[in-house]
Amino acid sequence: MANITKKVSWSSRGDESALVGEETPLLNGSEQPRPLRQMSSGNTIFQIDRLSTVDLEEEITTEEDPGRGRPKEIPHNEKLLSLKFESLDYDNIENQLFLEEERRMSFMSFRCLEISRWVICGLIGFLTGLIACFIDIAVEQLAGIKYKVIKENIVKFTEAGGLCISLILWAVLNSSFVMLGAIMVAFFEPIAAGSGIPQIKCYLNGIKIPRVVRLKTLVIKVCGVICSVVGGLAVGKEGPMIHSGAVVAAGVSQGRSTSLKRDFKIFEYFRRDTEKRDFVSAGAAAGVSAAFGAPVGGVLFSLEEGASFWNQMLTWRIFFASMISTFTLNFFLSIYHNKPGDLSNPGLINFGRFESEAMAYNLYEIPLFIAMGAIGGILGALFNFLNYWLTIFRIRYVHRPCLQVMEAMLVAAVTATVAFTMIYFSTDCQPLGPDHTEEYPLQLFCADGEYNSMATAFFNTPERSVRSLFHNPRGTYNSLTLGLFTLTYFLLACWTYGLAVSAGVFIPSLLIGAAWGRLCGILLASTTSTASMWADPGKYALIGAAAQLGGIVRMTLSLTVIMVEATGNVTYGLPIMLVLMTAKIVGDYFQEVRKGHMLTFDYKLKVVVF
Amino acid sequence: MANITKKVSWSSRGDESALVGEETPLLNGSEQPRPLRQMSSGNTIFQIDRLSTVDLEEEITTEEDPGRGRPKEIPHNEKLLSLKFESLDYDNIENQLFLEEERRMSFMSFRCLEISRWVICGLIGFLTGLIACFIDIAVEQLAGIKYKVIKENIVKFTEAGGLCISLILWAVLNSSFVMLGAIMVAFFEPIAAGSGIPQIKCYLNGIKIPRVVRLKTLVIKVCGVICSVVGGLAVGKEGPMIHSGAVVAAGVSQGRSTSLKRDFKIFEYFRRDTEKRDFVSAGAAAGVSAAFGAPVGGVLFSLEEGASFWNQMLTWRIFFASMISTFTLNFFLSIYHNKPGDLSNPGLINFGRFESEAMAYNLYEIPLFIAMGAIGGILGALFNFLNYWLTIFRIRYVHRPCLQVMEAMLVAAVTATVAFTMIYFSTDCQPLGPDHTEEYPLQLFCADGEYNSMATAFFNTPERSVRSLFHNPRGTYNSLTLGLFTLTYFLLACWTYGLAVSAGVFIPSLLIGAAWGRLCGILLASTTSTASMWADPGKYALIGAAAQLGGIVRMTLSLTVIMVEATGNVTYGLPIMLVLMTAKIVGDYFQEVRKGHMLTFDYKLKVVVF
Repeated sequence: MANITKKVSWSSRGDESALVGEETPLLNGSEQPRPLRQMSSGNTIFQIDRLSTVDLEEEITTEEDPGRGRPKEIPHNEKLLSLKFESLDYDNIENQLFLEEERRMSFMSFRCLEISRWVICGLIGFLTGLIACFIDIAVEQLAGIKYKVIKENIVKFTEAGGLCISLILWAVLNSSFVMLGAIMVAFFEPIAAGSGIPQIKCYLNGIKIPRVVRLKTLVIKVCGVICSVVGGLAVGKEGPMIHSGAVVAAGVSQGRSTSLKRDFKIFEYFRRDTEKRDFVSAGAAAGVSAAFGAPVGGVLFSLEEGASFWNQMLTWRIFFASMISTFTLNFFLSIYHNKPGDLSNPGLINFGRFESEAMAYNLYEIPLFIAMGAIGGILGALFNFLNYWLTIFRIRYVHRPCLQVMEAMLVAAVTATVAFTMIYFSTDCQPLGPDHTEEYPLQLFCADGEYNSMATAFFNTPERSVRSLFHNPRGTYNSLTLGLFTLTYFLLACWTYGLAVSAGVFIPSLLIGAAWGRLCGILLASTTSTASMWADPGKYALIGAAAQLGGIVRMTLSLTVIMVEATGNVTYGLPIMLVLMTAKIVGDYFQEVRKGHMLTFDYKLKVVVF
Repeated sequence: MANITKKVSWSSRGDESALVGEETPLLNGSEQPRPLRQMSSGNTIFQIDRLSTVDLEEEITTEEDPGRGRPKEIPHNEKLLSLKFESLDYDNIENQLFLEEERRMSFMSFRCLEISRWVICGLIGFLTGLIACFIDIAVEQLAGIKYKVIKENIVKFTEAGGLCISLILWAVLNSSFVMLGAIMVAFFEPIAAGSGIPQIKCYLNGIKIPRVVRLKTLVIKVCGVICSVVGGLAVGKEGPMIHSGAVVAAGVSQGRSTSLKRDFKIFEYFRRDTEKRDFVSAGAAAGVSAAFGAPVGGVLFSLEEGASFWNQMLTWRIFFASMISTFTLNFFLSIYHNKPGDLSNPGLINFGRFESEAMAYNLYEIPLFIAMGAIGGILGALFNFLNYWLTIFRIRYVHRPCLQVMEAMLVAAVTATVAFTMIYFSTDCQPLGPDHTEEYPLQLFCADGEYNSMATAFFNTPERSVRSLFHNPRGTYNSLTLGLFTLTYFLLACWTYGLAVSAGVFIPSLLIGAAWGRLCGILLASTTSTASMWADPGKYALIGAAAQLGGIVRMTLSLTVIMVEATGNVTYGLPIMLVLMTAKIVGDYFQEVRKGHMLTFDYKLKVVVF
């Protein structure tokens, strides 16, 4: 770290620092000496790009003096914060020594290096897949226990009265899980908050955020995400996988761990920023691949975020890591589900098989899909807008760890209360079919042999809710249920994102979108008298999910591929693509968001971007 | 063309031309002024890279004088041939005029340009999809008529004796179709021979081959490929789609046609090499996408072949073109098949749905798959080796158009004869199930209610044969049938590739591989006493097909994605990837082939590479 800082000469001359101070007041500490990689994410780091007008001196002017040549006048405390961030040096310095070392290398040792790169990528994929598997099983087991306890309690008190005890039980269970997760994140490793995707984007584009690829971060991230998902927050476990993959990659490729203070004396050749970045992009791809069962989507994600040159061998290795990661996850999950060898269950989120016969779309539906894309864009812009103000509020008033923990617990309790109230007052009873797929059907006040439909959406892990919205037959939900669910879940998700817990925003977005998408489908079907199959609610749920996700995260290319791979059906490729594009265009119109906009909402990191 | 030639100054000074003459004797005419794109396909154009040591003069030294400054001494006639090739200028010359034009452009007109780029990409996708649809329907109709006529004839003569009349009919029908195709190609547009993929690779990497993106080439390519597939040659119709897409792209984006001598006065801004190349890569992607139903594979193909920088917007447009292309093809094919709206039938080649439950693989099968990859590599190297010598032979002795037509007719007749003989002497009779999928089951000498199994493989379009090898239940073929079929088809395909007909090598490779792969599966299953499901012959056919294709064409990244997309199942991603990598490594070990090795086998073009 020290020698990197040495390379970055801080130009403290009066005129220049004035220029920097005026133009980019928050960026005083983080510059980029000769940005090798094009900033592919155009606006994101726009202010950093502007720095290229500043004439950076290449000589070492400040020889490690205590003040490191920082300018004296730092008006805001943000400046102090941003001084923590350093640049990564992705440019090999081709000096005499370097060239000599390269030249000394024989063909055999070059081959060995290449082989160890492949081995490392395989290891990265394997470990990332294992972590994904661990998260999945842990969440499933713990959530299973939680829902079983609450369900028994509800059943007990439905007859006898006194359901408020069930509510309190639910709220307390949720809060305690979330408290665990929030304490870990807020007190021990604040960088593990959120999804970690913005941090990885920063890393790939050359901004070093302290401790972002440490083993400790990984452990807290994994435990934290399990706690927040089991705690019933409106979050997903997919985003953190990307960060986890990147940490694994950084650790494995360097052959040492700073957290453990161990150096395994292997892979010493790869201990340079360029090589490390390549492996980190492979790790991020492996994470995407494990999260969504989308190896190609993972590769494109890495390319979209990190690449400015097309490097064939690197892309190939990234693909290898992604493949191994999906494979490992599937393999171990198939053993866990007692169906060893059945590798058709890719990813943490599984949209289920869309049978194309039942879900075909017609040409005249495409305008409808595009309109839904526009709705998704508007809702996404609204989501981001609300979250933006919430983040500003949090920066001002909720900056102490104990406050953060308390806020997280409050959100968990409120989520439980809202869910309970919605279920309690819902009158949407549905008959329990012979082949019902509901994991925890709540009867509550419904007649025998029926279950509460609102509970399917709320009393479930978000992944299962998404799948039931996609695949349950028509008539499973009535429109009032869906409308109320969309509204409350939208607000809850918006409040939740940005809490000091490890959590992703993918699944909540998909769930909100699937809910209003299914609502659209039902309303469309009701406008035509004949109950024709053209407005299958599951199909519209899928399109709505894509629209909402596109409106919130605004990624495009890799997102399309991820969605197509997650549905396992190329048929929906074109509609999903059109919807995502519309959502992006409309969303950008209402709220000009930086491409990697999630940066703006992330705890601590905001100062880099604002 | 003229002004491009002017830019390329031929350095005719004694010392330099001597240097060029010695180092790259066959490349005198094709230089590259400042190669902007990195030659991503490393070895392919290695000799061209060497030219960068030659000091190219930037000024125009030869002002269009008749001899154009060519060196006087040209020892071989190859030299004369290679003089036809020019370089494309992918480097925008940032002179005063150019910058001024860019500066004069308002924001609105910039927006308009961007929108027209999208519109053009949509059009490219649409037209490419239409062409694919036309080829598919034409082939299906004509082949249907042909096989029906022959079948009736065979049925008539099986009882009465005199089957040699059927043989003659078959051979004559095949030859006449192939004659048509070969005459078009040999006499009117030799550049339309082969798959056209090498030409497009050249184009994307900056080598201008005359008439490669003309409308006339497209028409002859399309008609030629229909003739050669219907003529029963061991060829596929997928490769030519890539060339077709590229021609469409070049035509649409320039808004004019040299063949028709029409200028539509539109898109005049895009009449520069850089823009044209971008559209051509979109067209190639759309072609891949239509051929294999693999939009993502198409994008990766374009990137792998043409890109050295990662351009987000361009990639996104390419993806759009690919999606539209698949969608158009599916839409019109679904109407043709009387199932409008069923868009689940992607691509010209459709591997059919692999049900993962029935086709799961186990961990211990992976070494077997890798071994099959090695076999594929060896067989691929053998194929290329044989074809290499055949190509040399053809260059020497079969260079006159009428000879080429006669050779093509001979191959067609021999193919028919061999197929007939194999079917005639085959004793592999299989019962005709109630839900038999054979389109033209030949009873021949089998008992009533049975059909000749060899005929399923030979008496069919190659696409259908591949699918039946993948999906027919176990026991449909016996091992002798498969072994003989592999051997004969291997030799026939090897002889066929390089003929003066429009044809691709993908399908024959897949078919050979599927045949020996299924054979492996059968043999493996017979080694274990219990008829366990672990060696499902269809699964091994798929792996064999991947191995053989990988061994012959040696593409890797895009090929994996194409194969995974064509199977519609991510489960097979890892095995296919491992198999393709093994096939490539083994193949390269036995025969160091240039990456874009198909260049070497392509008629006329070989002189660029050798």
